[in-house]
Amino acid sequence: MDFPKTDRTTLKRLPKRGVYERDIVYPILDEAFVCHVGFTVGGQPFVIPTGFGRVDERLYIHGSQISRMLRTLAGGIDVCVTVTLLDGLVLARSAFHHSLNYRSVVVFGRASMVDDRESKLAALRAFSEHVIPGRWDEARQPTDQELKATAVLSLPLDEASAKVRTGPPIDDEEDYALPVWAGVLPLRLVAGTPVPDPRLPEGTEVSSSVLQFGNS
Amino acid sequence: MDFPKTDRTTLKRLPKRGVYERDIVYPILDEAFVCHVGFTVGGQPFVIPTGFGRVDERLYIHGSQISRMLRTLAGGIDVCVTVTLLDGLVLARSAFHHSLNYRSVVVFGRASMVDDRESKLAALRAFSEHVIPGRWDEARQPTDQELKATAVLSLPLDEASAKVRTGPPIDDEEDYALPVWAGVLPLRLVAGTPVPDPRLPEGTEVSSSVLQFGNS
Repeated sequence: MDFPKTDRTTLKRLPKRGVYERDIVYPILDEAFVCHVGFTVGGQPFVIPTGFGRVDERLYIHGSQISRMLRTLAGGIDVCVTVTLLDGLVLARSAFHHSLNYRSVVVFGRASMVDDRESKLAALRAFSEHVIPGRWDEARQPTDQELKATAVLSLPLDEASAKVRTGPPIDDEEDYALPVWAGVLPLRLVAGTPVPDPRLPEGTEVSSSVLQFGNS
Repeated sequence: MDFPKTDRTTLKRLPKRGVYERDIVYPILDEAFVCHVGFTVGGQPFVIPTGFGRVDERLYIHGSQISRMLRTLAGGIDVCVTVTLLDGLVLARSAFHHSLNYRSVVVFGRASMVDDRESKLAALRAFSEHVIPGRWDEARQPTDQELKATAVLSLPLDEASAKVRTGPPIDDEEDYALPVWAGVLPLRLVAGTPVPDPRLPEGTEVSSSVLQFGNS
């Protein structure tokens, strides 16, 4: 079922770029490594980058830094979680029509702290698998002490929208005659060669999650 | 002069990662293509990704989408502008100690709309040169009409801090003996082959700003 169009998610500008289908929103969330969590404390807006993971219709947000600010709040807090993937620089013939190709998602809702052990474990697993699939089973599992020390926010995916820009620049009709190169410079986040921990015993093989990273 | 440590920018968690030197904060701002602008309207937090540029001790923020929401506000609005550069996945021996290498900056302040023609022109130029140096002089310059149609927010860089994580994972001492590959998988945003606009006359050479992109 698509997300409902609400006052908050209905785009005021360029409404044609607003997308509410879950099968467009979820892949954007799942591709991003970092989300930006916005919340308000005493009238002051804060925006904190942090790791996250999606489990079905719920976002788990790594909340150590955020929870410190929110610990006095019971019952959750209104947040806006935004994820942005940059796909390219859009170079038009006019300075004015330069743009970026991107895919972004904005989620509104009330986030609450996760307290129970099982949900926290699911969240930690989601953080891990979100970043690098298969890694969870390679690493030592969390102890109860570590689970207690991990602050996790939970946000239901009830109200969300995506914005997507793709394709070439859109210039004013009369500018197409200008002798200026125009087009798109694609951008992509790529992984380099794995750098072993200096304390790793010599000859330790790179694990399969790392070898397979980016091949899925 | 360094940024002052304020209540808002003093990190509550892992304070050793907080950095207030302008010569660390500015290069992070200048390397990012997108910032996330947080603001509050009627108690509701919003986080909007948008282009921006820095001119000396001031951020200019591309504000078309934001200004629509803020047009009723005179005298500016409190914002939190966050920029995040992702440098790598930090793969520890324990699930708990997985992390990300990143550089982020958080700026607090009161943003106001830019009205005068000269400042708007400076801001548009900053947006353009920020994304791809040299492009501004290649493209058709903005008309007065286009300048009027561009909404720009201006934010003084008075209160800001950076957070930086680099280096290998930090595992619990007893976990270093585990037979698990650990280290860093570096991540980097790279440009692909320029894609010419379909309406570009055949034989139009790629402009020098595009050729030089990423070589500086």
